[in-house]
Amino acid sequence: MLRLSVESRSVAQFIDITPLVRQAVEGSGTSAAACIVFSPHTTAGITINEHADPAVAEDMIEALHQLVPNEHRWRHLEGNTPAHVRASLLGTSVTVPIEEGELALGTWQGIFFCEFDGPRTRQVWIRFLR
Amino acid sequence: MLRLSVESRSVAQFIDITPLVRQAVEGSGTSAAACIVFSPHTTAGITINEHADPAVAEDMIEALHQLVPNEHRWRHLEGNTPAHVRASLLGTSVTVPIEEGELALGTWQGIFFCEFDGPRTRQVWIRFLR
Amino acid sequence: MLRLSVESRSVAQFIDITPLVRQAVEGSGTSAAACIVFSPHTTAGITINEHADPAVAEDMIEALHQLVPNEHRWRHLEGNTPAHVRASLLGTSVTVPIEEGELALGTWQGIFFCEFDGPRTRQVWIRFLR
Repeated sequence: MLRLSVESRSVAQFIDITPLVRQAVEGSGTSAAACIVFSPHTTAGITINEHADPAVAEDMIEALHQLVPNEHRWRHLEGNTPAHVRASLLGTSVTVPIEEGELALGTWQGIFFCEFDGPRTRQVWIRFLR
Repeated sequence: MLRLSVESRSVAQFIDITPLVRQAVEGSGTSAAACIVFSPHTTAGITINEHADPAVAEDMIEALHQLVPNEHRWRHLEGNTPAHVRASLLGTSVTVPIEEGELALGTWQGIFFCEFDGPRTRQVWIRFLR
Repeated sequence: MLRLSVESRSVAQFIDITPLVRQAVEGSGTSAAACIVFSPHTTAGITINEHADPAVAEDMIEALHQLVPNEHRWRHLEGNTPAHVRASLLGTSVTVPIEEGELALGTWQGIFFCEFDGPRTRQVWIRFLR
């Protein structure tokens, strides 16, 4: 399994990791059918969405903040419950088809590492599936 | 990888693609362990939920519209930010077990292509995993 | 495919099935690259999140109840529409990497069976992927 590092620079940030994943897949010479792109964290998720216009990711962060308010009195005493919920709403991983050694994504699709409790040094795991 | 076509007929519509996926799996004679059912779009997702009562899908569309309001002032200038967010909340793909060449789903489960920015001609990709 | 049984004891409950899944994976002697942990139900999902502090799961249940209110007039006459929506927001399955026969999860991550319409006897399916 590949373990890659990503750095988030703010509390909430969608990092476009498409080039990172593409390079890992295409550099490996794999004949895999797909790969899992997995976040080993509980306050950061992974999603696929439009990466042509960066405003889409900014809007998604805003929408997820509206969905789970920070100011509620949560039981979890670390105070980052909303980050946990936002991560689970998007999901911990995506599974992306691979064709002839290349990532198969739609025209407008990119893969995002979704930080909700940064800034931090984070990991992205990539697992090939036959 | 199989690339199938689906037609949505309204802005928001859950299309039950269970028969389409079942036929693709069972017609292929595959010995795969699972398949990815993948939307290559950024304003349409895939989910698994009840398909016995069509009211469940209608309610889900309504719930997703309540969750992400259309009338907010979003940064993304195409005006379809809520469709992007709804697609990511459900997810871009599902991974479905296959057993002895047949799709393994629970009694009430169906696979839905979830259109949030239609009507359009869309694609569904199916990738087998061993 | 492995079919395991879990018992929920309340209407909404996150059951930490990490030990169950770990035992199934590690007891199998598998050389798989990953496994799908799949809920064959339409009012219960699967998610990965923090399982060190049980308050995180309690907060997530509360957040999901805030997101999809019970008291709305839904079309689906069984009255459990919110449970269907909450299950799809989290997702029907997770795909978890396996390394050298062991489940590969981040330090704080656990796998939860997410009951939204209990109490019931439920199933969890585990499918290995190469």
